[in-house]
Amino acid sequence: MRDASTSRQTTSNALADELLAGAAAVLERVRTRAPHVHCITNAVAQNFSANMLLALGAVPSMTIAPDEVGEFAARAEALLVNLGTFDAERRAAAEIAIGSVDDANRPWVLDPVFVERSQPRTAFAKTLAARHPSALRLNRAEFAALAGAPWSEGGLRAYAFEADAVLGLTGETDLVTDGARLARIANGHPLMAKVTAMGCSASAVVAACLAVETDAWLATATALMVFGVAGEIAGARATGPGSFAAAMLDAIYALDGEVLVQEARVAC
Amino acid sequence: MRDASTSRQTTSNALADELLAGAAAVLERVRTRAPHVHCITNAVAQNFSANMLLALGAVPSMTIAPDEVGEFAARAEALLVNLGTFDAERRAAAEIAIGSVDDANRPWVLDPVFVERSQPRTAFAKTLAARHPSALRLNRAEFAALAGAPWSEGGLRAYAFEADAVLGLTGETDLVTDGARLARIANGHPLMAKVTAMGCSASAVVAACLAVETDAWLATATALMVFGVAGEIAGARATGPGSFAAAMLDAIYALDGEVLVQEARVAC
Amino acid sequence: MRDASTSRQTTSNALADELLAGAAAVLERVRTRAPHVHCITNAVAQNFSANMLLALGAVPSMTIAPDEVGEFAARAEALLVNLGTFDAERRAAAEIAIGSVDDANRPWVLDPVFVERSQPRTAFAKTLAARHPSALRLNRAEFAALAGAPWSEGGLRAYAFEADAVLGLTGETDLVTDGARLARIANGHPLMAKVTAMGCSASAVVAACLAVETDAWLATATALMVFGVAGEIAGARATGPGSFAAAMLDAIYALDGEVLVQEARVAC
Repeated sequence: MRDASTSRQTTSNALADELLAGAAAVLERVRTRAPHVHCITNAVAQNFSANMLLALGAVPSMTIAPDEVGEFAARAEALLVNLGTFDAERRAAAEIAIGSVDDANRPWVLDPVFVERSQPRTAFAKTLAARHPSALRLNRAEFAALAGAPWSEGGLRAYAFEADAVLGLTGETDLVTDGARLARIANGHPLMAKVTAMGCSASAVVAACLAVETDAWLATATALMVFGVAGEIAGARATGPGSFAAAMLDAIYALDGEVLVQEARVAC
Repeated sequence: MRDASTSRQTTSNALADELLAGAAAVLERVRTRAPHVHCITNAVAQNFSANMLLALGAVPSMTIAPDEVGEFAARAEALLVNLGTFDAERRAAAEIAIGSVDDANRPWVLDPVFVERSQPRTAFAKTLAARHPSALRLNRAEFAALAGAPWSEGGLRAYAFEADAVLGLTGETDLVTDGARLARIANGHPLMAKVTAMGCSASAVVAACLAVETDAWLATATALMVFGVAGEIAGARATGPGSFAAAMLDAIYALDGEVLVQEARVAC
Repeated sequence: MRDASTSRQTTSNALADELLAGAAAVLERVRTRAPHVHCITNAVAQNFSANMLLALGAVPSMTIAPDEVGEFAARAEALLVNLGTFDAERRAAAEIAIGSVDDANRPWVLDPVFVERSQPRTAFAKTLAARHPSALRLNRAEFAALAGAPWSEGGLRAYAFEADAVLGLTGETDLVTDGARLARIANGHPLMAKVTAMGCSASAVVAACLAVETDAWLATATALMVFGVAGEIAGARATGPGSFAAAMLDAIYALDGEVLVQEARVAC
């Protein structure tokens, strides 16, 4: 059990307190509304991301078939586009689905997985980033490839401001900014880096929170807090990455607003 | 532990007793014969369905490549066609594989996942349903889309009779009918709805039972009883959907005819 | 706990002792260097193989997109090509990636899954086998289809010698030969045959060991020892195939050189 005084200490400012209260409300709304989230995600992550959304209380759909992805995305309350496996079918599906959610004025998340690893991926990610995602969930190397410059808090704020999108940068400490506000979330567990699709499924949780909260900064920060706190709970129960993956889904399923507020270590 | 008197009460009629005895025999035959089941299923469900078949004692194969799916299906003792991810390659594979099992006079199951969600999916599912599957495993919304009318016991019987196929309608209570006979199965656990591909893998179990039992009604009812009873056993051990998925495979692996007869709550 | 005297008995010759010491060193090197392994593997196995590599301490990438697979493979320290789902995209990806690792003089593993099941698969596997993989990981039926003759120790040695490749033949006892040397590894657990993608993920472990060890015979034998010993540890903890899959990842994650040497049952 974490010392409550530490928790208070790291959340002593007013914005962080407001964020925590808002996050608890967002989590409860996901449980109550069970939003439909359509995911265009890579083959490695599809199963785990669908299970993550179900554990959270959302309703996933995963089709990438061009004939129908538009209709699925149009009916969903949020969309996730993840570039983890960068095949032609998924690229076409992403274009169609983003068109659908644009028309319906629905939120969507871009997860530019491994964008730093190949030129065609970088180029395509930049094209998608220009189509106004509500939020991007990415790590430092991915941000550097997308922004064309190494990571810094200032650079992060500037990118978010210019793109009019929230950035959720995950790492030892997660950073969430809309350009103006910046939250630092210090939850998480080392085993999260030892299970594939963990980041991808975090992005799915961001999409689920965006589905029930119009303030994309609050929604993204909520998702990463939920994810980090659940990761700590799962890490305390696991004996390795195999048991951790199952424990993570169990922890996401059981987490409520009260435990979230108590366990989150957030500063603004 | 369930009260044995309840079990007796709900299975008091002769057909239900016969069904239970038959189901135990079908389960034992799957264990002994280890039938080969070819699955054309969606990307989200492939891994879990293969593991479900292995846990049950069957031998799965999953290829969808047009060059070879016909040969794989021809050698299999049963076929599953699931529409969960509705891509062009899988549609082509389904057509070829159904042709193969038709030629070989082998049973096959249609799982029209999300058929109510898009027009092209409904149209394709109707085409496949017209090619005489031995059984369809579906939920109420999927039945309504396929039948063009809301669900009712009478409608279910009429559809099964006209299509000359067994319907396995899963929900709070599962219904299995060939038009004449109708079984109601009251097993299951709420966490089954919190793990992706649970229904898809139930359809794989239906295919495995059809591989060893020519009475498609008995085979389908056996599969859904096995699935529901295993779900209850897993639910009693799980602490959330992550541990439930693993416990479900463990329970399917361990289940025998005696426990099945004892725990199944079935009425005809 | 296995009797230490048995362990000594089965490893009494000098080559086996040398192999065990070498294997412990290879395992430690994988942990330290965290090699990048690119996997072209089937859809069923992608998630589990990525998790196996992460648990082992390697860094997986899984893309099969023709635009970028060459670049990913060129940056990886080893490549896995698995034929489990034999679609056109994966076949093209395999050709490109093998070209990349040839140019970079990097090791690669061929896993000719189900090569005995269809003619086009056999033909394609033979084409790939002719492109000089460092090692092939396969079972008896797959070897017979590839070699055009039933399995025998002599046939195995002859094939390895002629192909200038190491063969890792898995079964009740695993055999690893480069034509001259032959190791027999007697570890493993029956539940390994009840989880899909177990063999595929063993091949991924072979690739990770090849990434840090130029003696392909030592690397392949290490991988199969690590896999077999972890399987026994997991089997002792599991209650069925669902809990076994998670326990296997936990065991791979926790295994160190000392336990490997102590638990491996190897003869040369």
